[in-house]
Amino acid sequence: MTLKKLDAQEQADALTTLKEWSLVDGREAIKRTLVFKDFNAAFGFMTRVALYADKADHHPEWFNVYNRVEITLATHDVQGLSVRDVNLAKFIDEIFKQ
Amino acid sequence: MTLKKLDAQEQADALTTLKEWSLVDGREAIKRTLVFKDFNAAFGFMTRVALYADKADHHPEWFNVYNRVEITLATHDVQGLSVRDVNLAKFIDEIFKQ
Repeated sequence: MTLKKLDAQEQADALTTLKEWSLVDGREAIKRTLVFKDFNAAFGFMTRVALYADKADHHPEWFNVYNRVEITLATHDVQGLSVRDVNLAKFIDEIFKQ
Repeated sequence: MTLKKLDAQEQADALTTLKEWSLVDGREAIKRTLVFKDFNAAFGFMTRVALYADKADHHPEWFNVYNRVEITLATHDVQGLSVRDVNLAKFIDEIFKQ
């Protein structure tokens, strides 16, 4: 499957669905910050995302300190956003709600 | 145990031992960047560090993208470096060598 960059309309549609995500300044990427009860909860979450990401061969850029996780998603191969970012963001939102 | 901030001499001694670490500009903190074979290896390493960190109740600030992990260590309670950072840095160096 050839991966395709989201066009402006598709990007706008995606952001309408992904209400917790916002565009990164100066980059075609989306970001979200998540706060957990403690490090154990934050890293447990990261581990679930890591398993998903490695299976999907689509990895986040992320920063963690204690109970906070800042995630940026973009698709290197298309130099912007693709459906892989949307899918990973949806997965993150879904498990964060749990 | 009261945690004590490393004084200038202790900090210099620690950095002599921790050859792969350097001081962060404008902060009393140390940093190291590690590169792995792939995401699986990088996240496996992060998991080992996470288990150590949570047991020691001393957590890193870290950023990961794919096979790269950038780690910053500092001790919030002393607003600088403490023996906990030195111990965590040594642990990181030890398992990275493996």
